[in-house]
Amino acid sequence: MSAIRHALTVTRDSDFAAWYQEVISEAEMAEESGVRGCMVIRPWGYGIWERIQALMDARIKAAGVENCYFPLFIPLSYFAKEAEHVEGFAKEMAVVTHHRLIGDGKGGLVPDPEAKLEEPLIVRPTSETVIGAAMARWIQSWRDLPLLTNQWANVVRWEMRTRMFLRTSEFLWQEGHTAHADRADALEETLRALEMYRSFSEESLAMPVIAGEKPENERFPGAVATYSIEAMMQDGKALQAGTSHYLGTGFAEAAGIQYQDREGKQALCHTTSWGVSTRLIGGVIMTHGDDDGLRVPPAIAPQQVVILPMLRDDDGDAALLAYCEELRRALVAQFALGEPVRVLLDKRPGKATGKRWGWVKKGVPLILEIGGRDAASGQVSVLRRDRLWREDGKPNFIAQARDLFLAQATSEIENIQSSLHAEATSRRDANIVRGLVSFDALAEHFAESARYPGWVELGWAKPTGAELEDVVTRLKALKLTIRNTPMGGEGVTGNCLFTGKPATERIYVARAY
Amino acid sequence: MSAIRHALTVTRDSDFAAWYQEVISEAEMAEESGVRGCMVIRPWGYGIWERIQALMDARIKAAGVENCYFPLFIPLSYFAKEAEHVEGFAKEMAVVTHHRLIGDGKGGLVPDPEAKLEEPLIVRPTSETVIGAAMARWIQSWRDLPLLTNQWANVVRWEMRTRMFLRTSEFLWQEGHTAHADRADALEETLRALEMYRSFSEESLAMPVIAGEKPENERFPGAVATYSIEAMMQDGKALQAGTSHYLGTGFAEAAGIQYQDREGKQALCHTTSWGVSTRLIGGVIMTHGDDDGLRVPPAIAPQQVVILPMLRDDDGDAALLAYCEELRRALVAQFALGEPVRVLLDKRPGKATGKRWGWVKKGVPLILEIGGRDAASGQVSVLRRDRLWREDGKPNFIAQARDLFLAQATSEIENIQSSLHAEATSRRDANIVRGLVSFDALAEHFAESARYPGWVELGWAKPTGAELEDVVTRLKALKLTIRNTPMGGEGVTGNCLFTGKPATERIYVARAY
Repeated sequence: MSAIRHALTVTRDSDFAAWYQEVISEAEMAEESGVRGCMVIRPWGYGIWERIQALMDARIKAAGVENCYFPLFIPLSYFAKEAEHVEGFAKEMAVVTHHRLIGDGKGGLVPDPEAKLEEPLIVRPTSETVIGAAMARWIQSWRDLPLLTNQWANVVRWEMRTRMFLRTSEFLWQEGHTAHADRADALEETLRALEMYRSFSEESLAMPVIAGEKPENERFPGAVATYSIEAMMQDGKALQAGTSHYLGTGFAEAAGIQYQDREGKQALCHTTSWGVSTRLIGGVIMTHGDDDGLRVPPAIAPQQVVILPMLRDDDGDAALLAYCEELRRALVAQFALGEPVRVLLDKRPGKATGKRWGWVKKGVPLILEIGGRDAASGQVSVLRRDRLWREDGKPNFIAQARDLFLAQATSEIENIQSSLHAEATSRRDANIVRGLVSFDALAEHFAESARYPGWVELGWAKPTGAELEDVVTRLKALKLTIRNTPMGGEGVTGNCLFTGKPATERIYVARAY
Repeated sequence: MSAIRHALTVTRDSDFAAWYQEVISEAEMAEESGVRGCMVIRPWGYGIWERIQALMDARIKAAGVENCYFPLFIPLSYFAKEAEHVEGFAKEMAVVTHHRLIGDGKGGLVPDPEAKLEEPLIVRPTSETVIGAAMARWIQSWRDLPLLTNQWANVVRWEMRTRMFLRTSEFLWQEGHTAHADRADALEETLRALEMYRSFSEESLAMPVIAGEKPENERFPGAVATYSIEAMMQDGKALQAGTSHYLGTGFAEAAGIQYQDREGKQALCHTTSWGVSTRLIGGVIMTHGDDDGLRVPPAIAPQQVVILPMLRDDDGDAALLAYCEELRRALVAQFALGEPVRVLLDKRPGKATGKRWGWVKKGVPLILEIGGRDAASGQVSVLRRDRLWREDGKPNFIAQARDLFLAQATSEIENIQSSLHAEATSRRDANIVRGLVSFDALAEHFAESARYPGWVELGWAKPTGAELEDVVTRLKALKLTIRNTPMGGEGVTGNCLFTGKPATERIYVARAY
């Protein structure tokens, strides 16, 4: 295997963080924008986001949730209201204070002092407050419930240390916000969204996740319960890839979201919120990428097949292109994963080999290189991105009769989707350690396997308050966090590693992004 | 006809502006958000926007343009650069000056003085500058051209007088930005986008428009040429519904967008930009709305058919619902306007009559009311939104055999689309006056028909500079503007109404939004 010359200059083993940046750059997914903490999402990265949006949006709509759009700006007073009752209120937000620029008399521009806003506006970091105000207007009676809304939007949280897709000052997301008559109905919606995220991650992103409840110290500020999906990255760290919150009646009280129940009495609504963001793309990179770049699961690949004609700038090109075009048409008429196959015939100028490595780094699932002889003999040369190398270090092209390839193309694409999922699941499962019986053993495990520690599954007694704070502090000293309590994670035996009491539920402990 | 009791309280004739607001409110399309100049777009309004997005995005992608995402924030210095060379630089913009809130010691929150940004950030009013900076990084050689990008985004322009959908501080749009090797290629792209907007408006929005070039005083600041599509609203005013700009090399020079040509020499790119926004929804309302609310062209209707079962809370409901559900399934299996028919079975509690008027006001193209007897006898009762009333003042329900209705449903939906287009086109054409031979005649026309002046088509000599300014001033005194010179608008005879010189091209003059 040493003969392989990988497409990237940095391997995952040598420097995972640098590898991550190189994938993003070489796959032309995103880049620094020159604006602090904000990235430019390039066509390949944005194409993946469009696929994520389309598939997630279909799930959201199928659940009866309706898309809306709420203002980018939120008056400062809305946050002051929230700050009153929310202890962990995050304050790192972009503040708009002026609505006009004016010349400074030296050829430059400055905010016009005459155009100072009476009340500053906050660029939304999340929209509970402004959507809550709308819900209060829209809901009168039990007949209006449940109220199920969602928006696809950009949000801003001022981040000091940013990392593309994982933590950026501006990011794109969807935020679901719902209001219900009672706790049971709101909790059911919270868990429906969680399960939607879990199955979407597994099925569409081919990214195995564990769905569960966050410990109380990790709750969304003001939430009664916060649930998450957690994915294991290839460096063994956890990525919180989506959250769903049951907010109780606290937000409803602050915003005045009330309804008249069937008996004619006024009652507060129970609300939820749930979201996933462009962070998912970071998760996909760190789940499926390899030392040759990204590997995109076919379900979210902007192109599933790229056809590369080996053009020679001679008389043979016309016949070659006609053959490729006919191949493209035959492919797009097929369905894989329930949708028409997405195919690009790459006719750009330049050598096919150079273009091949560009597509390898972008992670397109199938690459077809077609030369004049292939066209003449009805052949195709197929490279599966997830089986890139032969043992002799050469790219693993398989020559196939065109008709055979077409007959198998759908199952090949679907097989890549399931293979990526299976590979990620095996790796995740192989890197969860169980059976540690003491905190010392936990510390030792993470000290020993500092390079690739994976996750530890353990039983605990679900301490709260100061007792939990103590656990969190001790874990923090080891750079560890509690990820979540998996759904159905009860039925555990033995004692709590932290308190010595009988364990009541399972949790995952890990380093995290 | 006097027997008709319309669903709205205000008619178009009595107060067009109030009628417009009532349609938006009664159709539950949007509402004031409590944030100055920003609206909340509700599910029905946002659903129409989603349809516009889907159809327009398909056209954009078919033209080889790739979607990207660029930062919401643009550093002030980028605008200073632009301000240097752009005279008409618009300064009404939201300025971010701080990145943190802090308690004011009195229970409130204020921008933290410690967190003042060194350089203020502007919330994008349009993205030429930040996209230009990216293009300068991406383009090296002629091989990289043309570079065709687009983004779907929110933008902010601080507006003093706002009107929902037509002029809001924040709005949603797409902005295409392209770079080309030379003038001819850039101009071709500018006109391709214009034609895309024209055909989209006519075909998808059923909104007739005139595509043409704006006079020089109406050019986008810094543009060499600005083109628009102009639609006539039912009050006779013009709505600029989309623009496409050929920017020459000015923006490329400011941003450093250069390429090495085939001879190895550095050359400046020629750039374009083009956009349409949520303003289109305002155009749809004022083109197709009537005194009973909105009428949505089927191509952009979130639901094309609504089925209203007349439930009685008795034993018969189950059979009725089963009949309606079967009808729904038969409809969604059909295709109209190239897509599966969109159907909602409205099972919400409440009287069918009340729900009917809700859907009439929302403008859903076909409403089916189904009672127990219809279900038993295989009938449906069909209301076409564009043929709402009988002469006797009753809703124009047509009883039909279910099978016959299903056999005709596709053509019925497509017929509504073309009927709305034909109706709007006749009205537009009937309200364009030609043959005025003097400025006095023009003034007289608009004074006489002040209530519904429509447009005037006339020949002019295309004055420029001070001569044009004079024309603009004279027209402004009559509250008139020059809309555009229609494509292919040459071949005109007679003299220019303003200068007396021989006319060289046609223009449209109108009051406008």
